[in-house]
Parts: sequence; structure tokens; C-alpha cells
Amino acid sequence: MPDRLEILPVHGLPLLKTGDDLAAIILAKAKRLGIEIRNRDIVVVGQKAVSKIEGRIVDIDNIEPSARAAGIADKTKKSAEFVEIVLRDAAKVLRADGDAFVVTTKHGQTCLNGGVDKSNVKGDRMYALLPRDPDASARDLMRRIKKLTGKHVGVVVTDTRSRPFRRGQVEECIGVAGMNPMVDYRGQTDLFGYKLRFKNVDLADELASAAELVMGQGREATPVAIVRGLKRVKFQQRTSSRKLSVMSREDLFKGTL
Amino acid sequence: MPDRLEILPVHGLPLLKTGDDLAAIILAKAKRLGIEIRNRDIVVVGQKAVSKIEGRIVDIDNIEPSARAAGIADKTKKSAEFVEIVLRDAAKVLRADGDAFVVTTKHGQTCLNGGVDKSNVKGDRMYALLPRDPDASARDLMRRIKKLTGKHVGVVVTDTRSRPFRRGQVEECIGVAGMNPMVDYRGQTDLFGYKLRFKNVDLADELASAAELVMGQGREATPVAIVRGLKRVKFQQRTSSRKLSVMSREDLFKGTL
Repeated sequence: MPDRLEILPVHGLPLLKTGDDLAAIILAKAKRLGIEIRNRDIVVVGQKAVSKIEGRIVDIDNIEPSARAAGIADKTKKSAEFVEIVLRDAAKVLRADGDAFVVTTKHGQTCLNGGVDKSNVKGDRMYALLPRDPDASARDLMRRIKKLTGKHVGVVVTDTRSRPFRRGQVEECIGVAGMNPMVDYRGQTDLFGYKLRFKNVDLADELASAAELVMGQGREATPVAIVRGLKRVKFQQRTSSRKLSVMSREDLFKGTL
Repeated sequence: MPDRLEILPVHGLPLLKTGDDLAAIILAKAKRLGIEIRNRDIVVVGQKAVSKIEGRIVDIDNIEPSARAAGIADKTKKSAEFVEIVLRDAAKVLRADGDAFVVTTKHGQTCLNGGVDKSNVKGDRMYALLPRDPDASARDLMRRIKKLTGKHVGVVVTDTRSRPFRRGQVEECIGVAGMNPMVDYRGQTDLFGYKLRFKNVDLADELASAAELVMGQGREATPVAIVRGLKRVKFQQRTSSRKLSVMSREDLFKGTL
């Protein structure tokens, strides 16, 4: 059989609620689909599933907007309540006008609406916040899978992201456990002995995008996929997604937009 | 067998040169690896392989830099000859200081060094330019595969890209043929009947990143991978990668960098 990377969707998960044992639910469903977890599998989980089991769902009717939120709501097409929940997890507002409400979260990630989102959350006024600490969420899931199966896996928690310069969204990594999210080629040589200086591949973002190909965004109810056969990843316990974010002052694209 | 997406690396391609029949070379190598091309496969090819067969390799010793190139070279750590070859395919220079030389290419793509790159090109002074028309390159490859195998495939030509806000590179689409590079969810509903407004997934970028997981950047000599089993893609003859680029004035991140 030829060498291959496989991406196995865990279709048809039940609706998730606060306190659910996500690892057990994934494992049970995977088993029914004929998927047995193996060492070195990478379990990719969409943020929404994690936010639901962690109770990070907010009813914006219960939110009291601050004056600052009201001011931003005036400049955007958002409600003051929505802006308020975004601001609570934001470190910095980069832009707020019209459709564009761009913030850097407390975790250093820059994205539209601070990652707060409505889709696939039950209830007209209910919104999903990002997990409080997505690396910790990934770690919890990894440990629980280890406990239930004995297998060492990597975990990537993902979110759907709009990007500068590009149209359409892709999935990116917001939390990681059990693996180095990057492959560093710097100092290595290419086919002709030329030293590679700037090649530091963001494997975790690529894994997120790869998994999204089977996960989908709509009614598919597939917030989990298992990636099997990735050779270049380094499995390790000490890790973090923090280094995937670039601080503004070091950003090579600073001043270009 | 569980549902799956497969990514099959076409390992060990020979060194490519101007005029080579890339489709025939890929097919021969794939066959030896036990891979038969099927309808609805997506063939993902790194830009460097395409640039080589299209003769888009430049010896910068033969380049006469313009005054403008010399001026930009003074502000960056690049040679005037290198800057000159970047400028020839650039529509606009967005930043030029220190390590940061950011341009928008004539094809509307914004990237470091206009995508001009040294790695895995033979010769100290030889650089690879982007294909002159990456969508046409993708189309040529798709048609040649059709002719040699009778199979309808999609083709994605990719390049390794640094991105604003994120550390490390990922692979993105620079050319596409035979398929819609996006999936548009707008107007569809989620699990609870909520209308999805902003979900327009950039499948082609996700395919590029997924393929890079098996392609690698260094000495692996694997510029081609075949993606099999993607359900959400719409195969169609009329297509272009142009719509994946956002013009600055409509960019929701304008002013945030």
C-alpha cells in the first residue's frame, strides 16, 4: 500500500453540553465508525465542541454592556451586548467600523470578533466564546484519551478564521497538546546544500486546515477528525500554541494594510 | 472501512528541468508507488516544480538592476539584482525595510519577496520566480493528466507563505484548475436553523496546507501529493484563484497591521 496520510472524520457526534466527557464521547463514536485510536494519532477538535463542554456559551440577554462596548457598537453593525462579550476576552481592539471588528485576544490571537461566534449554538441569543485557555483544553483532552485508551496522541483545537489579504476562511490552531506545533527547517540544507533560513512550518495550522476538509462548517456535525500517518511531527509534552502568534512590532507585514 | 480523506505523497520525483512533461513524470512515479489516478482526485503541486518546467529560473548575475531596485536594496538586506527580479512581477511594493520586503504580485497575491525563492534551486545565483500564470499552469497540468489517463482531476498549485499575525509558514493556493477553490455556506443553515452569513471556506488553501503535511520543505523532494476522498469540492472547468485574493480597500483587516 502506498505511503499516505489519513484524515478520519468522526461523524455524527451527539449535541454537546456543559460537563460532557468529550474524550469518551469521541472514542465511543469513533469505535462505532470502526476507528481505533492509535499512538501518534492527532485528534483535531473544533473550538465550538470544546466551548460547549466547558460551558463557554453565553446568553447575551444577560449581558450588561459597558460604555466602551456601547461606543464600539455604534461604530459597527454589532449589538452592544455582543461587543461586550468580545471585549471581556480581548487584550486590544485593532479595528471597529462597519463589518470589521478586529481584536487581539488575551491569548495573543488576532481575529474578527475575538472568535465569538453564533453558528451551531442553540438559541437565538446564545453565543460561543473561545475556550478560556485552549492549550489547557487540548491538554485535558489528550490526558483523558491517554487515560481511557493508553494511547499517546497529539491534540489540536481549531477555530475558523478570516485572514488579511485572503478571501474565505480557513481553520487555524488555537490550542495544542502533546506535540510541537511547528517544524523548524532553519539550519538544515535543501537538495543542493543551500541552507534554509526562513522555513519554520506551522504544522498545527496546516493540521487544522487539513481536518476542516472533512469537518465542514454547517450541518455536518463533525467537529472532530483524526489525522493519522503524519511523519514530521515531534511529539512532546511541553508545548504551547502561544508561539504561533506574532507580536505586532515583529510582524513583517506591519504597515502593509 | 471508515470514511476517510487520503493524502498520497508522490515521493522521489527526478530533478525537473525546462520543458519536462510534469504530468507524465508524476503519473509514472505515482504508478511505481502503487498510486493510480482516479476521477475526482486533486493533484497538489508545489510552485517550484512548476517554475522549473516552465523555465522560470533566473540567474541573478545576468540581471541589470534598475535605479528603483537599487534604492529598495539599500533599505533592505536584499541584493539589487534580487529586488529587480521581484519588481518585474510586482504590481505594488507594500513594505521594504530590513527583512521585510512585501509586495503584491501582478496576480494580486501579497507575499514576502513576491514569492521569489532560492531553496531547492540548483546554483548559488539561481532563483525561482513564480509561474507566469499559475492558473494556466494548473490548467495545463489538468488537461495533460486528462489526456494521459482519461481522468478528470482538480489541480492546485501551491506556494509556501508567511502570514500577518502568525508565526511560521503554511502552504497556500496560487493556482487552481478543474474545481471551485471555495465552498460557499452563505445562505445555508446550521444545526439549529441559524443562517450562516460569513462562511465561505477557502478549500484550495486548506488543500495546499493539507498536502504540505506530506510534501515537506527540505530535502524530501516531494513537490506533489494527491488528495483523494474530498466530498465538499465542486468540480468545474471555469475557475480561477484570483478570487482568493482580497483587494486592500475591502480587506476587513485594513488598518490593523
